[in-house]
Amino acid sequence: MGQIGGIDVRIEAAVAAALALGQGPADGAEAPGKLRAALDHAVFPGGARIRPTILISVARACGDDRPALTDAAAAALELIHCASLVHDDLPCFDDADIRRGKPTVHRAYGEPVAVLTGDSLIVLAFEVLARAAGDHPRRAVELIRVLAQRTGMPGGICAGQGWESEAEVNLAAYHRAKTGALFIAATQMGAIAAGQEAEPWEELGARIGAAFQVADDLKDALLTEAEMGKPAGQDAAHARPSAVRELGVQGAVRHLKDILGGAIASIPSCPGEAMLAAMVRAYAERMTPVDLQPARGAVRG
Amino acid sequence: MGQIGGIDVRIEAAVAAALALGQGPADGAEAPGKLRAALDHAVFPGGARIRPTILISVARACGDDRPALTDAAAAALELIHCASLVHDDLPCFDDADIRRGKPTVHRAYGEPVAVLTGDSLIVLAFEVLARAAGDHPRRAVELIRVLAQRTGMPGGICAGQGWESEAEVNLAAYHRAKTGALFIAATQMGAIAAGQEAEPWEELGARIGAAFQVADDLKDALLTEAEMGKPAGQDAAHARPSAVRELGVQGAVRHLKDILGGAIASIPSCPGEAMLAAMVRAYAERMTPVDLQPARGAVRG
Repeated sequence: MGQIGGIDVRIEAAVAAALALGQGPADGAEAPGKLRAALDHAVFPGGARIRPTILISVARACGDDRPALTDAAAAALELIHCASLVHDDLPCFDDADIRRGKPTVHRAYGEPVAVLTGDSLIVLAFEVLARAAGDHPRRAVELIRVLAQRTGMPGGICAGQGWESEAEVNLAAYHRAKTGALFIAATQMGAIAAGQEAEPWEELGARIGAAFQVADDLKDALLTEAEMGKPAGQDAAHARPSAVRELGVQGAVRHLKDILGGAIASIPSCPGEAMLAAMVRAYAERMTPVDLQPARGAVRG
Repeated sequence: MGQIGGIDVRIEAAVAAALALGQGPADGAEAPGKLRAALDHAVFPGGARIRPTILISVARACGDDRPALTDAAAAALELIHCASLVHDDLPCFDDADIRRGKPTVHRAYGEPVAVLTGDSLIVLAFEVLARAAGDHPRRAVELIRVLAQRTGMPGGICAGQGWESEAEVNLAAYHRAKTGALFIAATQMGAIAAGQEAEPWEELGARIGAAFQVADDLKDALLTEAEMGKPAGQDAAHARPSAVRELGVQGAVRHLKDILGGAIASIPSCPGEAMLAAMVRAYAERMTPVDLQPARGAVRG
């Protein structure tokens, strides 16, 4: 959604300001140098910054009357996402060597620094929100509550990752926590930052999260490793639950469209309702590009 | 400080309530079972709960007019301390097998669950504070800010641990972050929970933290492995900086007494000033017991 006026620039500035807070004074003498550098490595250059983009889009749709709080919320959410990538890449989880085209944090700085990088980014997310409270401590507290709820236990991304250590998995709870949680945080935090209630925005976040899950399943089934930037065909190889395994490629594409239709229908009444619907439609186009057409999928899927 | 009226009971109740929030509904079906059990394993039974004891003592000295907020602050601080122990015990740091007389979390539940346990406890600490805000969102925001500052980068316990991956160490910054930070959080959060300014309470926390560091150095030099419950003589074996190496045993004991005298002198004017001074004196007695007398130390130190 880089097209929507200046959101990209706004996110990068907010994340950079947050990171500077965690790195401390520029001379660096007061903070350990490797950990200081690793924070930067984990956060820049970023990926698609999808979650903060959704957050700011919702805040704008609700009037965005406290943009500094919105920026802090966007940065905090992205820091949590980056922290989760650093810890998920560790040898005891995915043991990944490469992330976003460069060595993972533990490959570049060692495992102790990688554990501390994730920990520090989690803590920094909450510090950024507390420091942005200004004249709106109630909004800040609510942002912190929602971000924590969607990050930790029992229903956040930590819980989602925790399900992967279980012999028997509650699949609904697993997907809700692992993929859905931070998308729900995105829509709810956008609303809270702009002074609105969080609750009406849960469904939109949950549906966008579900759509990304199905789109990921489709990519895993249809794209090559070179196109993915990581190994393809992993769901089938590991017999993982997948919308493509369950519904076939054409069924999964239809399912994705249904979810996104439901997402648009779920948008709460607000000044920017039409803009948000356009955003979801744009995501839908990006998630089902030409090379994910059923004709090709039928050959490889 | 278990002697001071009911603090022990109050802390255990507050930590149990916080943990129940992180574990979710009692049937457990909505959360991954191993991670759920590991949270409990990491937090109960506790150690000395020194940091929350100091926190509640300071809050009481300041009037403790919002005890629910004080309890939340005490629980949050202890959750952060427990999280740091779980991560510090990991194979890439201390590779510890035993903690508080039972297997460490990664030995009991595996390394992935141990990483997630630390992450979840950090997040839970901030969630507990956000949920306790009630009619005092400004106090809650300030508690979150101080806890984050003393936990993460550039000056919290994450930074302290991060210095151990550096070739050249800023020793003052290292000790301030590694040992001092959570004691400063304890005194400052106690004051904030009771509606007072944080700043005047920094020195007391820093001095108590410094005293614990010297006491630890003395124990390492003077006690046996059986008395310590962990390997003794590690500072000398690893040529680590230590007050005993620098000052000798008698010098370190004198230094400890000086620090504690300064701690008492630094207590800000408040209704419970005398009670706090008595608390610091009680810690001083516990930190320099009969078997740490110079006579014995001169033989073994």
